[in-house]
Amino acid sequence: VCCVAGARVDVCAEPLQRNVLLCVQAADLTIQLSAERLKSAPAAPKSFGTVFTDHMLTIEWTEAEGWGAPRIQPFRNLSVHPACTSLHYSIQLFEGLKAYSGEDKRLRLFRPMLNMKRMSKSAQRVCLPTFDESELLECIRRLVELEQDWAFLSESSSHLYIRPTFISTEATLGLKKPTSALLYVIVCLVGSYFSSTSEGLSLWADPKYTRAAKGGNGDCKLGGNYGGSLAAQAEAQRFGCQQVLWLYGDDQQITEAGTMNVFLYWINEDGVEELATPPLDGIILPGVTRQSILDITRKWGEFAVSERYLTMDQLCSALEQRRVKEMFGSGTACMICHLSHIVYKGEKLSLPSLDGDSLLSTRITKEVEDIQFNNEHISWKLGRS
Amino acid sequence: VCCVAGARVDVCAEPLQRNVLLCVQAADLTIQLSAERLKSAPAAPKSFGTVFTDHMLTIEWTEAEGWGAPRIQPFRNLSVHPACTSLHYSIQLFEGLKAYSGEDKRLRLFRPMLNMKRMSKSAQRVCLPTFDESELLECIRRLVELEQDWAFLSESSSHLYIRPTFISTEATLGLKKPTSALLYVIVCLVGSYFSSTSEGLSLWADPKYTRAAKGGNGDCKLGGNYGGSLAAQAEAQRFGCQQVLWLYGDDQQITEAGTMNVFLYWINEDGVEELATPPLDGIILPGVTRQSILDITRKWGEFAVSERYLTMDQLCSALEQRRVKEMFGSGTACMICHLSHIVYKGEKLSLPSLDGDSLLSTRITKEVEDIQFNNEHISWKLGRS
Repeated sequence: VCCVAGARVDVCAEPLQRNVLLCVQAADLTIQLSAERLKSAPAAPKSFGTVFTDHMLTIEWTEAEGWGAPRIQPFRNLSVHPACTSLHYSIQLFEGLKAYSGEDKRLRLFRPMLNMKRMSKSAQRVCLPTFDESELLECIRRLVELEQDWAFLSESSSHLYIRPTFISTEATLGLKKPTSALLYVIVCLVGSYFSSTSEGLSLWADPKYTRAAKGGNGDCKLGGNYGGSLAAQAEAQRFGCQQVLWLYGDDQQITEAGTMNVFLYWINEDGVEELATPPLDGIILPGVTRQSILDITRKWGEFAVSERYLTMDQLCSALEQRRVKEMFGSGTACMICHLSHIVYKGEKLSLPSLDGDSLLSTRITKEVEDIQFNNEHISWKLGRS
Repeated sequence: VCCVAGARVDVCAEPLQRNVLLCVQAADLTIQLSAERLKSAPAAPKSFGTVFTDHMLTIEWTEAEGWGAPRIQPFRNLSVHPACTSLHYSIQLFEGLKAYSGEDKRLRLFRPMLNMKRMSKSAQRVCLPTFDESELLECIRRLVELEQDWAFLSESSSHLYIRPTFISTEATLGLKKPTSALLYVIVCLVGSYFSSTSEGLSLWADPKYTRAAKGGNGDCKLGGNYGGSLAAQAEAQRFGCQQVLWLYGDDQQITEAGTMNVFLYWINEDGVEELATPPLDGIILPGVTRQSILDITRKWGEFAVSERYLTMDQLCSALEQRRVKEMFGSGTACMICHLSHIVYKGEKLSLPSLDGDSLLSTRITKEVEDIQFNNEHISWKLGRS
């Protein structure tokens, strides 16, 4: 499942035009160390994404000059022009991946090339430049290597969350392809993503909100997909639920849960035991955890594993007929998250809640974590500096 | 058509919670003058949105303290935390309005309360706080008053473009309602929005891209609606067209043109002379110019004026039967823009191109401009400082 990152240099996807540096080049990386290392580390665990490490990676790009030299420098605020089109037109994207520490106290990145490839695809969607994915990954590896002590501050922070971000720095209000941009990477402590997951997450489903549509950008990790979901999320909370179950179309297809991909483990309409998740048809984010769950369970070969449409009608029928075994969400931040119930058309649909050890999600979590934290042969370890 | 801005103070829409300042208060405005006034003014006209005036308005908000005092200060870069959720999750929105100078050399704002109300609606969509719309408008009026000399630099810069912007300043990576935010307003020279409009704009229509969907955010001025359109815009240009004609649904409804509302002036299926534009059903931006065109032509009472669905099939039939009189787009930046042709399914559909003076769009433009630049009684003039 894991990706071994080598030192190979891919050919850039974009055709060579002008005499510009089309590739991010890890060999040009410079490092300016912070004088304040580990000083902002908290005594007690904080919630997800609130505590950042001492350094950040920045790489500037301009249409005229191409990619500049990658720099690792002390974590600091960005100086942003008030007309910057990342703030006005959301010409911005991000990625999320984790570095996991094994028993050998070395950090591993989980399938990071999938993130690099998805990031490149997101960039094309908002007319930001592509980059050499392996070279960027090498720069990120160097950053995480520098920050690895942050992963061992306490039991609860045994892994780090890495946030590559790519924004336009164009400072003109006409809507157009950016001529300058900044790619930067920050690293934060993980903490706990959801405030309560012991009993599983509660979802609110209402067809009046859609997360993404055919012909839109739901399959890319663009900021607009997230901020645009907040109103629905607030309404879910007014209904006593933690997240939105996003539906789509007249047949109310189940698409995603909050910011997670969603899985249904059931006996399907044909009486077949099946693990099902919606197909990558343009409105679904191609999650790395999603793909890993499909890969692992297909390798098991114990039940059907399908990328297929699932509607609310199908789910409701299956619940009535006691054909649902389990539902769960998946994502890098939350990993795998059992779902407890869905509020839909004023009714609370309870999802099966077996003893934790018997859950398919628990078994999958164990197998994925075994790869993430311990598998020496196929994961990518960071050397101790 | 114009809005007279008075000194009234509206009650805030949000219910009072805690002892926080829920209202932006113009009376608290402080002004710090720039030492560099008018020094960056260009000798020759530049393109739209590239030259900014000397000052900006900023108003900070926090969940704990409510709205801070409005400040007019020298135009400067923003200091932004790298985890700011305006850059990651597009918790951001903007408005666009113009100040027009009449023969009396005094500036007028055109229907600015419509922008304030739309801004408030956009804020609610991304869980940013609402504000007192009249008080914010008064602060903007003071900013424009201070910058009015920029409007008289040359013949081509006889009006200014005003860009209110509202961003989350929350610096945590968990996706949630922001607890801090910055509302700021910048002012720029207008220049020419499109590079060539003498013959009208060319559009490219392909159902494979959608701008917005039912249940989404297409009716709010959120950044994500704009950055997410760049890939389609780039493809339109590869087909030799300037903008995208956005279609929606299986029946390929005509929705918007680029970032403009769209109007069809035709003899409809029932043989009735009609000016038609798509209805505000959630996927259409409620444009101020759009509303003004509807108001003016309804007042004329010379032909039917309809907010109705228009499909590509209907347009194609009407073109074949020579029932189309004219198509045009509308928006604050471009004002009213004649459309020349549409590339659709590999065919170039030519739209009628009468002599400019005979065009309905020319007549509407003249009437709107008369209000924007000259109507003393119902427009809102800025005093000379």
